[in-house]
Amino acid sequence: MDKVFVAGCGMTRFGKREEPLSELVFEAAKMAQEDSGMEDFDAVYAGSMNPEELTDDGNISTVFTDRLGMQKPSLRIETASSTGAGVFHCAFFAVASGFYKNVMVVGGEKMTHIPTPKTTQIMARVISPIERVYGATMPSLAALVTRRYMHEFGLDRETLGLVAVKNHHNGSFNEYAHFQKEISLKKVLESRMVSDPLRLYDCAPISDGACACVLTSNKKDVRVSGLGHATDTLSLLHRDSLTGFSATQEAAKKAYSMAKIGPLDVDLAEVHDAFTSFEIIDCEDLGFFKKGEGGKALKGGITALEGDLPINPSGGLKARGHPVGASGLAQIVEIYWHLKKMAKKRQVDMAKIGLSQSIGGFANNNLVTILEAC
Amino acid sequence: MDKVFVAGCGMTRFGKREEPLSELVFEAAKMAQEDSGMEDFDAVYAGSMNPEELTDDGNISTVFTDRLGMQKPSLRIETASSTGAGVFHCAFFAVASGFYKNVMVVGGEKMTHIPTPKTTQIMARVISPIERVYGATMPSLAALVTRRYMHEFGLDRETLGLVAVKNHHNGSFNEYAHFQKEISLKKVLESRMVSDPLRLYDCAPISDGACACVLTSNKKDVRVSGLGHATDTLSLLHRDSLTGFSATQEAAKKAYSMAKIGPLDVDLAEVHDAFTSFEIIDCEDLGFFKKGEGGKALKGGITALEGDLPINPSGGLKARGHPVGASGLAQIVEIYWHLKKMAKKRQVDMAKIGLSQSIGGFANNNLVTILEAC
Repeated sequence: MDKVFVAGCGMTRFGKREEPLSELVFEAAKMAQEDSGMEDFDAVYAGSMNPEELTDDGNISTVFTDRLGMQKPSLRIETASSTGAGVFHCAFFAVASGFYKNVMVVGGEKMTHIPTPKTTQIMARVISPIERVYGATMPSLAALVTRRYMHEFGLDRETLGLVAVKNHHNGSFNEYAHFQKEISLKKVLESRMVSDPLRLYDCAPISDGACACVLTSNKKDVRVSGLGHATDTLSLLHRDSLTGFSATQEAAKKAYSMAKIGPLDVDLAEVHDAFTSFEIIDCEDLGFFKKGEGGKALKGGITALEGDLPINPSGGLKARGHPVGASGLAQIVEIYWHLKKMAKKRQVDMAKIGLSQSIGGFANNNLVTILEAC
Repeated sequence: MDKVFVAGCGMTRFGKREEPLSELVFEAAKMAQEDSGMEDFDAVYAGSMNPEELTDDGNISTVFTDRLGMQKPSLRIETASSTGAGVFHCAFFAVASGFYKNVMVVGGEKMTHIPTPKTTQIMARVISPIERVYGATMPSLAALVTRRYMHEFGLDRETLGLVAVKNHHNGSFNEYAHFQKEISLKKVLESRMVSDPLRLYDCAPISDGACACVLTSNKKDVRVSGLGHATDTLSLLHRDSLTGFSATQEAAKKAYSMAKIGPLDVDLAEVHDAFTSFEIIDCEDLGFFKKGEGGKALKGGITALEGDLPINPSGGLKARGHPVGASGLAQIVEIYWHLKKMAKKRQVDMAKIGLSQSIGGFANNNLVTILEAC
């Protein structure tokens, strides 16, 4: 089961794209195919969160195989905003079972052509109806969590803003990022309020983009060594804690156990920073820092590109962008590039073990994936 | 890889249901859980085609785990109208890989509360945009295929109607069927025209319903012995033939090869009769009868409940109903019941090997599943 390798990866530039979704997926898949050096695939596993409403596409897995010119078995997998990781895990099982040898995994979403209020409405579908009925949106629930975290652990507004500053800095080295420019802390703190205390620059943008990844049972340089997946209650109000996500904690535990490592063995990580506070919470849920100490680690430079444990070297969802069906896979692609020493200006030295963590819905369908150079 | 068993199954009555989708899924899952005698599951695999638009539910796999009270890893799988089979295949891989021992597979859709023109519009999303733009709908494309088949193979209108008569007869013995009453050939031929030559009684109804199935690596009475999956071009106009579906032919070939059997070894089959002509085409694609001879076999009673090869003992999509995310799994559940001798009044005697075949979109994402009593 533990002999599944990544043979190649691809990604489009994230941001505002004019091409149709299937064209973006084609671009990413072609890059992954060329990177893998392989010509033929047994199946196409496709991740997309809501192509029906966003791009008027049904039957999306066949839409993709059609554009790819690969009439291969194909399914679509969806786990809300962690879809890109969900499809990777499903494809892993198909290869690990021995049923398929080589699988092309793709994930993509096209969102920027829709007016933001409409997108927000579509995305709010992932929220529990008993919370949605009161007007809850993703940012408003995230604001609630952030405020509670600030209260419990004394995190100040400035430190929160440093997540965005760090991730935009990293994104400035990433040719695939939605935002490839630095921002100042002042700019974050002066950006317009979205949901108090979260401001515009605390939130990942709405983006278009696609990713691809070839999984194979043939030995390659990068092995998939750990997988973990867990759900949580749909409603936030049914949870014991607001300041940590148990679905991440549980998924991490499983992934570490499978990979036979602990959090201290991880050389770099891509985490789900849909909101700045989430990066701090994610790092604690993953066991990188003690509860309440994520902000201090950030301030101390530990999570910087040159720090002991670089977090979101790609720029994260915050700067690379967040096409919901692609993000989870984009994180995995970023880890792969570092392990293969292909990350160019943002290369993390001596990277041997990388982890990615994706949040689905309001942190109730989370996945952790660990890759190892071998 | 070939040691995956079905431990239990469940199904709601299909038809017009008042309960929310998650409630239907709960009902089916509870029945499957009780049938399996198992208490705990490692994951929940969920199939639903378009809950976002049909029932305003996003993040559906977490919605289901929440209602089931199982905070387990959960993903949603979708392959248009073959979704129920797609999710079964994905769950198979997860068990076959050794990653999970016991997986609860669910599939459901709620559709009847939406006005039919709106549902037709939502379902038409699965059609290629280059055909959709001319107003193509599922029934209109099916009518084109049917007319061509009648022309090429001399199938007459009356024989086509006999598919509906047979399947309603079978459905009259099925307490879970949407339509549990017989219909006459006259009634079929006099029903209103939907798309010439297809009349209302040639088309599967819009239904609500859910199914569930427990897959396990522990030895049980029913083994999953064959799986096959194939896609085809999105557009009908890009295909060589209108009178056969290559995605079914290819999926069947793979499934037979895996199960080490041929079509003559199959004791009963559930096939995707979304339209009466599809049942005839499906049977030929599966190799049960020579090309063009499916109508003759039907007229000769071979596919009747008491015939040599009963087709759609459940009543098929035509009479059991067609909640799109459930149908593919409902077919598998029906086969399981026959192999376990639990099919009551419609029990097929001496059933040892059963096959189910599902069509996704306009026959471009098709799956074949073979179960064996052991």
